[in-house]
Amino acid sequence: MSIRWTLISLSFILSVRSSAVETVPKRTTPEDNLRIRRGAPFRIALFADLHFGEDAWTEWGPRQDLNSVKAMSTLLDQEHPDFVIYLGDVVTANNIMIKYASFYWDQALSPTRARSIPWSSIFGNHDDAPFEWPIEWFSDIGIPHIHCPDSNSGAEKCNFGGTTRLELMKNETEQNTLSYSKSGPQDLWPSVSNYVLKLSSSNDSQEAVAYMYFFDSGGGSYPKVISNAQVKWFENKSKEVNPNSRVPEIIFWHVPSKTYKEIAPKSDLSEHCVGSIFSEDVADQEAETGIMKVIEERPSVKAVFVGHNHGLDWCCPYMKLWLCFARHTGYGGYGNWSKGARIIEINEKPFSIKSWIRMEDGNLHSEVLLSS
Amino acid sequence: MSIRWTLISLSFILSVRSSAVETVPKRTTPEDNLRIRRGAPFRIALFADLHFGEDAWTEWGPRQDLNSVKAMSTLLDQEHPDFVIYLGDVVTANNIMIKYASFYWDQALSPTRARSIPWSSIFGNHDDAPFEWPIEWFSDIGIPHIHCPDSNSGAEKCNFGGTTRLELMKNETEQNTLSYSKSGPQDLWPSVSNYVLKLSSSNDSQEAVAYMYFFDSGGGSYPKVISNAQVKWFENKSKEVNPNSRVPEIIFWHVPSKTYKEIAPKSDLSEHCVGSIFSEDVADQEAETGIMKVIEERPSVKAVFVGHNHGLDWCCPYMKLWLCFARHTGYGGYGNWSKGARIIEINEKPFSIKSWIRMEDGNLHSEVLLSS
Repeated sequence: MSIRWTLISLSFILSVRSSAVETVPKRTTPEDNLRIRRGAPFRIALFADLHFGEDAWTEWGPRQDLNSVKAMSTLLDQEHPDFVIYLGDVVTANNIMIKYASFYWDQALSPTRARSIPWSSIFGNHDDAPFEWPIEWFSDIGIPHIHCPDSNSGAEKCNFGGTTRLELMKNETEQNTLSYSKSGPQDLWPSVSNYVLKLSSSNDSQEAVAYMYFFDSGGGSYPKVISNAQVKWFENKSKEVNPNSRVPEIIFWHVPSKTYKEIAPKSDLSEHCVGSIFSEDVADQEAETGIMKVIEERPSVKAVFVGHNHGLDWCCPYMKLWLCFARHTGYGGYGNWSKGARIIEINEKPFSIKSWIRMEDGNLHSEVLLSS
Repeated sequence: MSIRWTLISLSFILSVRSSAVETVPKRTTPEDNLRIRRGAPFRIALFADLHFGEDAWTEWGPRQDLNSVKAMSTLLDQEHPDFVIYLGDVVTANNIMIKYASFYWDQALSPTRARSIPWSSIFGNHDDAPFEWPIEWFSDIGIPHIHCPDSNSGAEKCNFGGTTRLELMKNETEQNTLSYSKSGPQDLWPSVSNYVLKLSSSNDSQEAVAYMYFFDSGGGSYPKVISNAQVKWFENKSKEVNPNSRVPEIIFWHVPSKTYKEIAPKSDLSEHCVGSIFSEDVADQEAETGIMKVIEERPSVKAVFVGHNHGLDWCCPYMKLWLCFARHTGYGGYGNWSKGARIIEINEKPFSIKSWIRMEDGNLHSEVLLSS
């Protein structure tokens, strides 16, 4: 194996993917809020665990990413969502040998951008991970020759330590007017994608119909955890934007909290849960610092949505809310479960939150009412 | 805990350490080779596993580093070596929260530089590791506030992905005329510290008395392994500089190869081994790609020296050579074994290689003849 392999693969990616890269349309809504269209529900598609950028030195990797682009395109054309949420593990940075994970990140955004659909994203545990050298490369096969600049001038270029969360977010938001993603408050760093989006009424752009909270649940360059600082931020922010819990709220992060593990159904026989695959143990966060307690005690929170486990797609009731997995959308990452996306539909009047899973083959299953 | 802690600690380090930083004297030997002084043996001190830069946000960390500076100073003043080898894990980069591991690296060099003793260094598995966030920081105690520049202008500054091997080496060699370290051939990267030094005769600067080979045994940003490419480099390089194995050779790397594990004595009762602590299992490399076979078959190789295991300091015979551990020199890193340094003494006429361990308290033990 040599650098030629890498270069060949890279030009292969560039050529096969050029069709997926479109020009960037301007954001259509002038205000910062998302707004429900009159007479229509607000539909959200969750794209979970796309894992772009795997095995770029083989044909397998780029082919998986093309399949993921196709899957997303199909799902978008079936559901016509008003909004897309990239639920983390957009890229597999520990597989990306160039200091340029944003290249792959951008490919993952392309089907949504091409349809002028606004989106937001959060980070998963793979998005900023440093490159992990395959041990096989050090044996007889040989290490691909890395063409770093001379060590005296450009040692920095031979750094495969991962693209930081801040760089990834900066690249996404600066280059895409359709992106609603944010880097979040600096005092929450190293966790980055912490922000809230307001969904406004079709009648009044000031009136909130729902709030969507996004959390960075860590992993990659730091532990898989929602910190106590994030918990406090949520407490303060939710009180500020939604005093007295008047407006319904839904929450998104990547790695399931420990509560998911505690309530996980052992099989699909569990009478209260809704879903189609129950194939794995929950891979939970490393610690619980209090987010679940705050969520439990806040009556307006209707549901939490996570990714991370490719072999789980259930929603289970927990106290007065729902804990849901998304559905593995990408061809990258482990597991051969067929691909799909969890859809969330918010209706203004009468208010309701419904959810179902749309499969790439067109099938629809696991419909559930989350606002009951 | 807050950024003030970090800043306080950093200024503490800067103030207490300033006494250890001296001006850089010019290299005294004009040629590139090391040379034996007439009528005297050539004495080398191995400084292993110094682990500078631990817990910089407490008083404990900086205090350990001061103790390590003192230990090295004492050892140097007792042994007056002609050369020092920094045998890897000079810093604990996974504990260093600033993108500036060279600051700590330089502190580790300071006692040697202050005495105008030339040195060389190799990398261990901790030297370029990315920062590992303590999980406790995410709980109630709180994350120290990281003062990164605004995300729009300087996201790069919030990267704690470690200082690369190339940057560390560049900083060492550019700023120190006494350093004999090298970044090694580019086609061996990501392993960096691969080079050979010639020890010349006191009579003739062209005549070699011994060759010293240095290897980067990986770890940190890539697997702990000596690659097949490094094996081939050694085969070619040794044939080039020392055809027919005429001149004795000694070899240095950080992480013990699998052979160390195979021959490790279970206790100090082993009749052929020489040493004082046998307290741990050998923490060996992740794979063996052929270096040991080449070394075994090369009659001129007299000994291999490694660090990594703080609780081992033995030399054991293996086939026609010796496999040796150094002695834990630093107060950083795990283990409370008392500190010391393995000394190697090369005599020109009659040729011999002796070794012993000098302890910080002045004691001397485990003397062994390696050239028998």
